[in-house]
Amino acid sequence: MNSPVRLLGICGSLRSASLNRALLRELAAVLPAHATLDIDDKLGELPLFNSDIKDDPPVVAAFKAQISAADGVIFACPEYNYSVTGALKNGLDWASRPPPTSPMRNKPCGIVGGAAGMSGSMRAQAHLRQMLIYSDSPTLNQPEVLIPKQFERFDSTGRLTDESTRDLLRKFGLAMVAHVARHRS
Amino acid sequence: MNSPVRLLGICGSLRSASLNRALLRELAAVLPAHATLDIDDKLGELPLFNSDIKDDPPVVAAFKAQISAADGVIFACPEYNYSVTGALKNGLDWASRPPPTSPMRNKPCGIVGGAAGMSGSMRAQAHLRQMLIYSDSPTLNQPEVLIPKQFERFDSTGRLTDESTRDLLRKFGLAMVAHVARHRS
Amino acid sequence: MNSPVRLLGICGSLRSASLNRALLRELAAVLPAHATLDIDDKLGELPLFNSDIKDDPPVVAAFKAQISAADGVIFACPEYNYSVTGALKNGLDWASRPPPTSPMRNKPCGIVGGAAGMSGSMRAQAHLRQMLIYSDSPTLNQPEVLIPKQFERFDSTGRLTDESTRDLLRKFGLAMVAHVARHRS
Amino acid sequence: MNSPVRLLGICGSLRSASLNRALLRELAAVLPAHATLDIDDKLGELPLFNSDIKDDPPVVAAFKAQISAADGVIFACPEYNYSVTGALKNGLDWASRPPPTSPMRNKPCGIVGGAAGMSGSMRAQAHLRQMLIYSDSPTLNQPEVLIPKQFERFDSTGRLTDESTRDLLRKFGLAMVAHVARHRS
Repeated sequence: MNSPVRLLGICGSLRSASLNRALLRELAAVLPAHATLDIDDKLGELPLFNSDIKDDPPVVAAFKAQISAADGVIFACPEYNYSVTGALKNGLDWASRPPPTSPMRNKPCGIVGGAAGMSGSMRAQAHLRQMLIYSDSPTLNQPEVLIPKQFERFDSTGRLTDESTRDLLRKFGLAMVAHVARHRS
Repeated sequence: MNSPVRLLGICGSLRSASLNRALLRELAAVLPAHATLDIDDKLGELPLFNSDIKDDPPVVAAFKAQISAADGVIFACPEYNYSVTGALKNGLDWASRPPPTSPMRNKPCGIVGGAAGMSGSMRAQAHLRQMLIYSDSPTLNQPEVLIPKQFERFDSTGRLTDESTRDLLRKFGLAMVAHVARHRS
Repeated sequence: MNSPVRLLGICGSLRSASLNRALLRELAAVLPAHATLDIDDKLGELPLFNSDIKDDPPVVAAFKAQISAADGVIFACPEYNYSVTGALKNGLDWASRPPPTSPMRNKPCGIVGGAAGMSGSMRAQAHLRQMLIYSDSPTLNQPEVLIPKQFERFDSTGRLTDESTRDLLRKFGLAMVAHVARHRS
Repeated sequence: MNSPVRLLGICGSLRSASLNRALLRELAAVLPAHATLDIDDKLGELPLFNSDIKDDPPVVAAFKAQISAADGVIFACPEYNYSVTGALKNGLDWASRPPPTSPMRNKPCGIVGGAAGMSGSMRAQAHLRQMLIYSDSPTLNQPEVLIPKQFERFDSTGRLTDESTRDLLRKFGLAMVAHVARHRS
């Protein structure tokens, strides 16, 4: 018997037709039966982090609460300027504080991502992995989900049309669920 | 005769007593006589970048205009989660678009930074340098301004009290002005 | 009852009085009772990796065999040119091949390191972590062992004289042993 | 009138049929008329760097002398384990010492690279750029030469068959020659 695994997906792109958000939806559809994936809708509502703000505004508190409630977090990571998006980094700046009691601490994480170009978001994912060392969030190594020229793999309604990518997402989902289980005490 | 050099300082921290902003003020005070440094006050007013927004909002247009008007940009780079701040990355996401005509393209850049810990912001600066490859912004290599335990070097009013740091800023300013001159066609 | 944990230490510096190798010796002295740490002496004997060499030379085979035999690997990571040493990278180039059956695959890893300067080897460790994603080697996040100005913490015979560092090594050892246990199937 | 520009190419792969070395040969063929590119053959002969060796062995001295004699250095950068090769890093460990008088200091550099996979060597190039900050070697930003699936672009004798790649090399050569000129004086 497998106990339920609740995953939270956070997409670094804010545009409505984001293919990285589409990647999260497609992942949700191929997860093992005991796992679920909710997709965050608060990242784009967060104010810019400023440590002069001593109490978390309500939207920040809600953003952090959903991380706390999840068994694991999956970042969908576009690549802007060879790094993560400002929006995603801003979300981490909020979520990782205060360090000793941050909801990111010991939270199992995974990363998926795609890009219009050949990088498939690999430069952004490398930066994200470094950030997750700071927050002490154990992050799945492999399989890596790095999708180059991602617009060729989705139709105009944002549905995945490439079966090799779907198969990769299925393997990633299995590995992510095992990763969460491994880090449960 | 040296022609005037107008530099723009952009501080990645939004807090009012930021020591990284203080570093920019101290740098301004030791620049060569023909150079000036204005400090940006718009980064914290920018909305989160979203490529669905087709026309630059006024604050974005103003942020980009001051970069265009400057002969060079100096980033004051704190380190949050072993990387640049979300606010700074968000500013770059706006400023670097559209790539062919972005105000960052060919703009000579330099980086200074400090941190409360031992890193002196070096991990954040390494990420920032990678971002500036994307925007094709030639960035000064050395001297690097990496200030560890920066609170020990400023008094409670944010004035620099450490003369070795002031000397480093003076050398950085000279190198930055030469860097701008080298990249003027 | 804890089953024995055999760790292999690999030091990226080849000089005889290396303080990174000294760090491994000091770590060995504070490990939990059921853990042991052997220190590699083959890295400096390896030829430069060349994929034209189809069969592993004996010293390469011996280097890889000791990794295979270990339950976990701890890299002592100096920082040369803001990255790992060429010798350490060369060892990984050998050990990580062929990828599907490499002794590094799924091998739990940890990193310690120090430097004469302020970085404490953090830039080199960041590069090493990226390499270990390729080889799918789960690597301990924290505590990070980053020792700045390491010559101030050892006496002239290479003995650690700083008790806060010894305490950090003790915590690292406990975390590493737990990390190995977590990744045993 | 353009003064002659002597470039040195250093290939990080040691295998005889290296496509990264082939990339250097193809670059040599499309450089502006006043520029020449010699290709190093000593990297694979260097011993592993060890700071206990106080005097440069002859092959090290010869390796460094050719860097000193060149107006600029172009690295052909394969990607092993998501980073530069051990051989290339080892060459830099030798060439960058001693820091104040190293032949790398202020030496204009450029990077080209390809890989069998989709990365086109971008992860390795990012690491190499960080190393070149240490040695204060100004490195050309763009155009970046990142060749994915490079075996599809060369014939079985190592001749480039892809004209878009040749055009990119031509642009890179022009930019590199301008980069060298900018850093003279």
